[in-house]
Amino acid sequence: MRDKQKAVRVGIVGLGTVGGGAFRLLSENADEIARRTGRPIVVSHVGARRDNPQCLTGSVRVSRDVFDVVHDPDIDIIVEVMGGTTTAREVVTQAILQGKHVVTANKALLAEHGNEIFALAEKQGVYVAFEAAVAGGVPIIKVLREGLAANRIEWLAGIINGTGNYIMTEMLEKGRDFYEVLKEAQSLGYAEADPSFDVEGTDAAHKLTILASLAFGIPLQFKKVYTEGITRLTAEDVAYASELGYHIKHLGIARRTQQGIELRVHPTLIPEARLISNVHGVKNAVLVVSHPVGPTLYYGAGAGAGPTASAIVADLVDVARAMAEGAGSRVPHLAFQPDALDDTRVLAMDEVCTAYYLRLQANDRPGVLAEVTRILSQHGISIEAILQKAAHAAGRVPVILLTKVVQEAAMNAAIAEIEALEDILDHVVRIRLENLDA
Amino acid sequence: MRDKQKAVRVGIVGLGTVGGGAFRLLSENADEIARRTGRPIVVSHVGARRDNPQCLTGSVRVSRDVFDVVHDPDIDIIVEVMGGTTTAREVVTQAILQGKHVVTANKALLAEHGNEIFALAEKQGVYVAFEAAVAGGVPIIKVLREGLAANRIEWLAGIINGTGNYIMTEMLEKGRDFYEVLKEAQSLGYAEADPSFDVEGTDAAHKLTILASLAFGIPLQFKKVYTEGITRLTAEDVAYASELGYHIKHLGIARRTQQGIELRVHPTLIPEARLISNVHGVKNAVLVVSHPVGPTLYYGAGAGAGPTASAIVADLVDVARAMAEGAGSRVPHLAFQPDALDDTRVLAMDEVCTAYYLRLQANDRPGVLAEVTRILSQHGISIEAILQKAAHAAGRVPVILLTKVVQEAAMNAAIAEIEALEDILDHVVRIRLENLDA
Repeated sequence: MRDKQKAVRVGIVGLGTVGGGAFRLLSENADEIARRTGRPIVVSHVGARRDNPQCLTGSVRVSRDVFDVVHDPDIDIIVEVMGGTTTAREVVTQAILQGKHVVTANKALLAEHGNEIFALAEKQGVYVAFEAAVAGGVPIIKVLREGLAANRIEWLAGIINGTGNYIMTEMLEKGRDFYEVLKEAQSLGYAEADPSFDVEGTDAAHKLTILASLAFGIPLQFKKVYTEGITRLTAEDVAYASELGYHIKHLGIARRTQQGIELRVHPTLIPEARLISNVHGVKNAVLVVSHPVGPTLYYGAGAGAGPTASAIVADLVDVARAMAEGAGSRVPHLAFQPDALDDTRVLAMDEVCTAYYLRLQANDRPGVLAEVTRILSQHGISIEAILQKAAHAAGRVPVILLTKVVQEAAMNAAIAEIEALEDILDHVVRIRLENLDA
Repeated sequence: MRDKQKAVRVGIVGLGTVGGGAFRLLSENADEIARRTGRPIVVSHVGARRDNPQCLTGSVRVSRDVFDVVHDPDIDIIVEVMGGTTTAREVVTQAILQGKHVVTANKALLAEHGNEIFALAEKQGVYVAFEAAVAGGVPIIKVLREGLAANRIEWLAGIINGTGNYIMTEMLEKGRDFYEVLKEAQSLGYAEADPSFDVEGTDAAHKLTILASLAFGIPLQFKKVYTEGITRLTAEDVAYASELGYHIKHLGIARRTQQGIELRVHPTLIPEARLISNVHGVKNAVLVVSHPVGPTLYYGAGAGAGPTASAIVADLVDVARAMAEGAGSRVPHLAFQPDALDDTRVLAMDEVCTAYYLRLQANDRPGVLAEVTRILSQHGISIEAILQKAAHAAGRVPVILLTKVVQEAAMNAAIAEIEALEDILDHVVRIRLENLDA
């Protein structure tokens, strides 16, 4: 790599689900991260009360006393992923006082003590990065701080607690009651044994506190958030709302009005046609309305080891860049370091595999469809669905076929043969089909 | 402001819709931008063949020869928004050679000549920023370069041409034919007099070229994109697809496979339940599937003066930060400079205005509903919808009301009176309702 700089050394404090995820991601995607950053990011010290069997800490130093990591002079950046607001607060404060940068996923800590923490960080000249604190893998912090920097933000509304949204989705789709779904979510590991942070809205209120500060330029003020949980929602109300054309979502809403700022978390009916109404399961989404861009929406996984690790490592890359000088401090034009661009081959269209929608115009005679399906089958093309419509004028029958995924070359050959059939009139209409199942 | 630094001086080349929008935004949101950046961004020279009546250039220097702006020694950053790939290419190249940073919205220029432009910029040590080139006001470039930096991107699919999506939406919702809708879009100003860049897919292919490079770390290779427009789509196929549960969208798709990379723009059937299927009108959306974060989606206005200006100014803020040193180079923790935080009042919940869903349990007797509506009316609460269900066991009738927007204090008072009625059993269930119409 050009401008090869020495590795950034990271200490992880807390090796649970999130810490373990960050640890694994840094090794798993190390190549891709280095291609982008131009500088390796290496975990060199981990502080955890017990080992995480999913992490082979191997040659990495492991300390049972988390403050050993904080005071390790070889560490540039502390990743605080232990959670809670007591020891974590001390860890973050000590790290800042040591002149170390901090990356944290701890929304409770920031919502409740962020003003002091950021003031101390400013004074010490270090970064406290927190992309992972809100909406997991969705880079909403970066969007609000940088992407929308030219905008005056009017309001935002977010589904920012995945557990709550999973419960609401099950209630809507299956007509089940709150406590029944909660119990199942706990057994599936989507909800904690003590689910009150999620279902009473505290977690969403922590996140909303942070979003509102970034949106409006106001201090963090968690205590002023009106917070109402979803525990009193009944299957009956979910069904009536649906009958009236609404979905109920647990929203965090921050709005700038002439009288002042609204900060509130509560169950909310939303017209079912809105994009955010169709954010289901454990997913998160934040709708931001600002001038001049208008409404924008950001959607993705709000929790889990992988998505949270994605946000933590993105912060590490940002901080590593900020620590560097010259070219190393820059985001490369095309995301990857210029000398790390790949020459991967671009496929010709007939090598591409997709599913297809086909529409044929056939003479209304027996045996035509059999001929068509025979040709498709000979080219290894499986049929997913057939729709045969009533005959048009002059005995023409439109036949619509959906196929399974096949290489375009095979489809081209099949279509040529189909078009050569005596009973097929006109060209075959072919539109590609993608499931986008992700 | 702390660390007050001198203003960044910007020259705008091209003062049409986009250039005029950027010019106006910088003055309109100047306070908000300075609160965030800690440094004014000032347009000091504009190059345009003719004046834009929507821009009062006033004290700003205006040159008819755009190269006067490029060679102005007082300018730090050139904003190239003239479009095209000939003069614009020369403007950008000359600016880079002068050691100036460049911000551009020109996807055609970058898709076709970006490799040379970025190489020259690297050599000269300047930035060429291009958030506005794809998806307008949606910060998808920043998301791919920075927000998802830890991820290995597998594929992305985008609705990245607003004109095309407007036409597809009209075809779907109104069963109209392509050319009929196109004509209307032209008269509404959504489509150009020569719409071929939009409807033949060239514009989407330019944007896909850029997105694919950022996603996979490959050089820009516009010529290898398979491009198919929407001009041959019929109302008939749109209707059949819909009957089978699919919407047709004009997608740009980039996918990494074991055989190579797919780059393709074509009409595509997508299951109607997918979030991206429900992106309608002139809006854009990009779905990115990457490891470990999984699917994320970014939605918003893809074109227009305001959204494009939003992206251009966000780039100016980024470049201004990169030019600064010390604290001025930093993104503030809470998005705004610490000494620019506002102490705007947070409203108490009873001051907040929303609409409501109310569910009452009433005795099945005449006159109860009249009593309820009288109380609501006395508190200035208008009713939007009423749903009265058949009586439950024991003569209890559930009554559901949707109200218009009202202050929570009035609603609290009304609910207290309603609950005091003899024929109202149980507490009134109250869930807030937001239209989120944006």
